[in-house]
Amino acid sequence: MRAAVFSDGKFKVEDVPAPVPGPGQMLVRPLACGICGSDLHTRHHAHHLADLLQRAGFKGFMSPDKPVVLGHEFCCEILDYGPDCKRELPKGQRVVALPFMAGPSGLVLLGYSNAFNGGFAEQMVVQEDVSFAVPDHVSTDIASLSEPLSVAVHAVAAANAGPDAAYVVYGCGPVGLSVIARLRFLGLGPVLAVDPDPARRKFAETMGADHVMAPAADAVGRWWEGQGAPIGVSDAADARAAGRVGRRPVIFECVGKPGILKAIAYEAPAGASIIVVGVCMNPDTIEPGYMIQKELSMRFVFAYSAPEFVEATRMLAKNPEAFAPLITGHGTLEGITDAFDALERGGSQAKVLIRPS
Amino acid sequence: MRAAVFSDGKFKVEDVPAPVPGPGQMLVRPLACGICGSDLHTRHHAHHLADLLQRAGFKGFMSPDKPVVLGHEFCCEILDYGPDCKRELPKGQRVVALPFMAGPSGLVLLGYSNAFNGGFAEQMVVQEDVSFAVPDHVSTDIASLSEPLSVAVHAVAAANAGPDAAYVVYGCGPVGLSVIARLRFLGLGPVLAVDPDPARRKFAETMGADHVMAPAADAVGRWWEGQGAPIGVSDAADARAAGRVGRRPVIFECVGKPGILKAIAYEAPAGASIIVVGVCMNPDTIEPGYMIQKELSMRFVFAYSAPEFVEATRMLAKNPEAFAPLITGHGTLEGITDAFDALERGGSQAKVLIRPS
Repeated sequence: MRAAVFSDGKFKVEDVPAPVPGPGQMLVRPLACGICGSDLHTRHHAHHLADLLQRAGFKGFMSPDKPVVLGHEFCCEILDYGPDCKRELPKGQRVVALPFMAGPSGLVLLGYSNAFNGGFAEQMVVQEDVSFAVPDHVSTDIASLSEPLSVAVHAVAAANAGPDAAYVVYGCGPVGLSVIARLRFLGLGPVLAVDPDPARRKFAETMGADHVMAPAADAVGRWWEGQGAPIGVSDAADARAAGRVGRRPVIFECVGKPGILKAIAYEAPAGASIIVVGVCMNPDTIEPGYMIQKELSMRFVFAYSAPEFVEATRMLAKNPEAFAPLITGHGTLEGITDAFDALERGGSQAKVLIRPS
Repeated sequence: MRAAVFSDGKFKVEDVPAPVPGPGQMLVRPLACGICGSDLHTRHHAHHLADLLQRAGFKGFMSPDKPVVLGHEFCCEILDYGPDCKRELPKGQRVVALPFMAGPSGLVLLGYSNAFNGGFAEQMVVQEDVSFAVPDHVSTDIASLSEPLSVAVHAVAAANAGPDAAYVVYGCGPVGLSVIARLRFLGLGPVLAVDPDPARRKFAETMGADHVMAPAADAVGRWWEGQGAPIGVSDAADARAAGRVGRRPVIFECVGKPGILKAIAYEAPAGASIIVVGVCMNPDTIEPGYMIQKELSMRFVFAYSAPEFVEATRMLAKNPEAFAPLITGHGTLEGITDAFDALERGGSQAKVLIRPS
């Protein structure tokens, strides 16, 4: 089979042996597979990522010195079953699956494993017990958003989101847009989306943001004050003393670049919860003495549970067309380097899908 | 009256006009007043502190260019009442009070105000409605611990502390020791206390820590693993998958120095809550990508509410002698510079009290 093999910092489409499904595994054909921000990072900083995961005690991560086939946001069709499968779905059925696999030394991440190839290939194996049929009315492209949307389902759950809160989402890439979609799906708001790119702000409106703005001095602060959530500690104390209960401030950090946490802290209302979803791979500087005065909290979130993944597929099934604006480009295995290049140039891209077959 | 006036980075005992209690205020004589870590910081970095509080929107903080009388951890006796007081307590009654005062432009912090002097003086004014009688069986020294202990009451409340958790307290100065005391008062544990100083570790044992240790590679990690709280994300996932429920990891940061957050993150179990009580006045570097993998959270806490202050006085009243080890020194107004010097040298000091009269 053909696969975009990543090695020494470069993609090369090669003929490689097709994987053989083991017990409880299905052999599938990836029909569409999204490019994730982590994939972009891996292209240039695979050793850094491997070091970070190793230090965090993740045992099943790839060795960056060996070839790997990336891709963990896939929609596939079933080709065959390995031993000990329940075979509840017919061959040819389209499925999405959690990109996790029980490997020889514990859990591995599909798309970041030397032992199992990811979705930028003509075939791969997935675990049957975490695979779910895609309903006929959901297109393959939309179904491939299940994985990034799961991240948003998890992040919003971690925020203890509720109708008493107001929400600011920093960064309107695929993760930020998915968070906005999740909040609106739950009927929560108001939601303010902040992004320097006008096209991305437009996406945010399409996904249901009540307000959008570019980063600008005091602008977010004024929005919070309009929600009854004072920025300064004295104003917050005065509001409490006067019994004025504003919206509980909840902030999603979906940018993942150094400096953003400090910038967010400065325009966060006193008492705000900051949910850190953006994966910043560089060390970052914060000002603890300042965050203490305002009693801010930061909750770092990662991935999702199987029920959260299922919830993401239900969201997509309920209104698939609502998510169509998230998909801004397509590529082939041969075009994968161009697709990565385009995403790195930034601008108005959201999710770019590779169609490996 | 005499007061230790702080100006241009130096203390000087001077005769200054006695304060006059305004409406709802009492004139009191400070009998003992503790030196806080924030006081130590103010001595050398008053402008930095003022800038930080100004940026955090705290309106009632002192101008660092004007003279100030520090001291916000006081036990006093009532000398007189201003107008419009309820006068429920007799003159001569010992009281503790929240160091907050309604000033002309909103709330001020007593001890950090140019308009009202703090406790390093022979007289001061406090607000009657946040003053509480000290029971006869509680010594003046012990009563002066009400304020720092309130910080611990608040921090433990913010941790959502419960019997399902295990606790590590980093730093066994007055704040860390108070957190340990609060946890044990609530019957919570096990508690591990971490401090490089042997005398402070001894204090921690006295305050009820189940285990103590000096910072050392892997030592805290091994302790967590003994509580069923794996450090690494793969081990944590395996434990979840096998239905092994260990203790929920709760960590109190009571050190307040740059580097401590990163160090704590590295030896924190996956999913740990870090309550940041130590006031680090310098920028600090964290590694968001690492904290995301382990899904850590950091909650920055500051001060306390009036009910939390009252709860601290109740703790002290229930078993005053238990808190005696926290007090490791005394000084006079004239000796305040020496007392600050001694605390800055570090070592085995915990709380040092100034007796202004």
